[in-house]
Amino acid sequence: MKKFMNTADTMVTESVEGFVRAHAEFVVFGAERKCIRRRHLTPGKVAVISGGGAGHEPMHIGFVGRGMLDAACVGHIFTSPTPSQIIGAIEEADTGAGCLLVVKNYDGDVMNFEMAAEMVAARHRIEMVIVSDDIETARVGDGRGRRGVAGTLVVERILGAAAEQGMSLDRLKSLGEGLSPKIRSMGVALTGVTVPHTQRTTFSLSATEMEMGVGIHGEPGHSRKPFSAADTIVRYLCEAIAGDIASQPNAKALLFVNGLGGTPPAELYVAYDAARRFIENGGIQIERSLVGTYVTSLDMQGLSVTLALLSDEELALWDSPVATAALRWGC
Amino acid sequence: MKKFMNTADTMVTESVEGFVRAHAEFVVFGAERKCIRRRHLTPGKVAVISGGGAGHEPMHIGFVGRGMLDAACVGHIFTSPTPSQIIGAIEEADTGAGCLLVVKNYDGDVMNFEMAAEMVAARHRIEMVIVSDDIETARVGDGRGRRGVAGTLVVERILGAAAEQGMSLDRLKSLGEGLSPKIRSMGVALTGVTVPHTQRTTFSLSATEMEMGVGIHGEPGHSRKPFSAADTIVRYLCEAIAGDIASQPNAKALLFVNGLGGTPPAELYVAYDAARRFIENGGIQIERSLVGTYVTSLDMQGLSVTLALLSDEELALWDSPVATAALRWGC
Repeated sequence: MKKFMNTADTMVTESVEGFVRAHAEFVVFGAERKCIRRRHLTPGKVAVISGGGAGHEPMHIGFVGRGMLDAACVGHIFTSPTPSQIIGAIEEADTGAGCLLVVKNYDGDVMNFEMAAEMVAARHRIEMVIVSDDIETARVGDGRGRRGVAGTLVVERILGAAAEQGMSLDRLKSLGEGLSPKIRSMGVALTGVTVPHTQRTTFSLSATEMEMGVGIHGEPGHSRKPFSAADTIVRYLCEAIAGDIASQPNAKALLFVNGLGGTPPAELYVAYDAARRFIENGGIQIERSLVGTYVTSLDMQGLSVTLALLSDEELALWDSPVATAALRWGC
Repeated sequence: MKKFMNTADTMVTESVEGFVRAHAEFVVFGAERKCIRRRHLTPGKVAVISGGGAGHEPMHIGFVGRGMLDAACVGHIFTSPTPSQIIGAIEEADTGAGCLLVVKNYDGDVMNFEMAAEMVAARHRIEMVIVSDDIETARVGDGRGRRGVAGTLVVERILGAAAEQGMSLDRLKSLGEGLSPKIRSMGVALTGVTVPHTQRTTFSLSATEMEMGVGIHGEPGHSRKPFSAADTIVRYLCEAIAGDIASQPNAKALLFVNGLGGTPPAELYVAYDAARRFIENGGIQIERSLVGTYVTSLDMQGLSVTLALLSDEELALWDSPVATAALRWGC
């Protein structure tokens, strides 16, 4: 295992330290470094807060800034932040209008965010939106429901934009719950991921295999298939997504091709080119696009495709100004 | 070799097609697809044009847009664009104030850009700036001089910003020549790169080796060393850079940690954290930072460190609005 790190124990803290120093115009550490928060909070605005395990960078800390998140907590690698960290973020970011917690659907994350919310319920108004865009987990049918993966970025952007425009906590919660069934993702891996502490890959693939339906924590997917051409792989992902999302003819959508950590931009654009053809052939209008490495699984070579059906109002929120380390436009 | 592609022959055209479709707000194809150009050219502004082989994405096409490049040509993988492509870009982008060609210092690139410039000299005013930031090649001493690598981004941004503000062709040329000796880069690889047509890696490294001083075309570096901690690797790069750049005490600089294609963001931030400590300990003030995957060598796992000593005027140009697929702020 060759990674740019000093020790497995210090990797996350050094990476986050580097991030905060590189992007000091947007972010600062919260008290006791329990969270990363916006350098300039907006009094009276609902605070949008997220977090999760490390190993998914730039998510979530790269989304902290104007028009997206007010604070984010980073756990150990692939491990939820603690309730104490989440409470720290709530106390830092709540300027009086309450907090919306955006949580990926994993047992540990949901439990810790709920616990934190209960512990400060007397002092803070809190609502939660659970993101569960990964179609694969529902098919596995283990009863835990869908995982939250790259679609989390879309939820955080649109809710962050709405909060910036002054939307109330109740309306944000309702907007978030309306988004959830309209966002679907699926991933494919060409390699497993190497976890720094164990120095082992979570699963191994030969030079002629790929893993369909992977999550972002090094979990294997639902099936191993022979590696094939980009069109074949991407068609598989797009057909699975299209079969799992209720779209009207000429529905408007955001198409997001996300690199899982070790996939270069040139390959992501080949996949985007294929995905766009398949999705448009299915009668969906691609109104917005995002291609890049935003929601990773350490150094995994792989990608995910996310389709988000968005209303005109939601598209306008997507377009509104955002100024974070990883997403930036309009300001 | 597992890459997201259909065939080696179509990889570049499909990738560029995907890029143009994903970023249609910024770019369009030029006539006969010889170049990618800005969707909206500014009449009377000097056109800033670049290009090079494919396999370095998002450079250069990701830098086409307001405040950076007016057009860019993409050759085959690791192969210069043809004079015909470059002439196409000049004819598309020159709105009357002349063209500045920004060329990475490789024999093929320099030859083809010079040939194109000569062929249209009767109809277009053209100047050229050669970027040669890679300290490694000078040390190898093969007489070809330094290669142009990640520092090219800095040159294109600053010259593009100055052109946007109306700077004349002669002054742009002089600004570019002044930048060149102040920008230095060095790279390290943990893997070679796999070239799609040959399906072979350009060099192989064992699990305990790394290659110091690599370029961006899969060339090996000057020495193979035992793989070691991030601090050790980054100190080596920073000391080599510091020893090769003439800096005054408290000089102001941009520090740029660039991923070579297969390195995830979390590791780039660990390297940035280390590089910042070493550079600041050397008495240089880091005024601006850039961390990400901008100048790649296909799927190479590795990174480069670039240090650019910048005047207050150059820092202001860096900060001015830019709207491209890969770099975007202030608009």
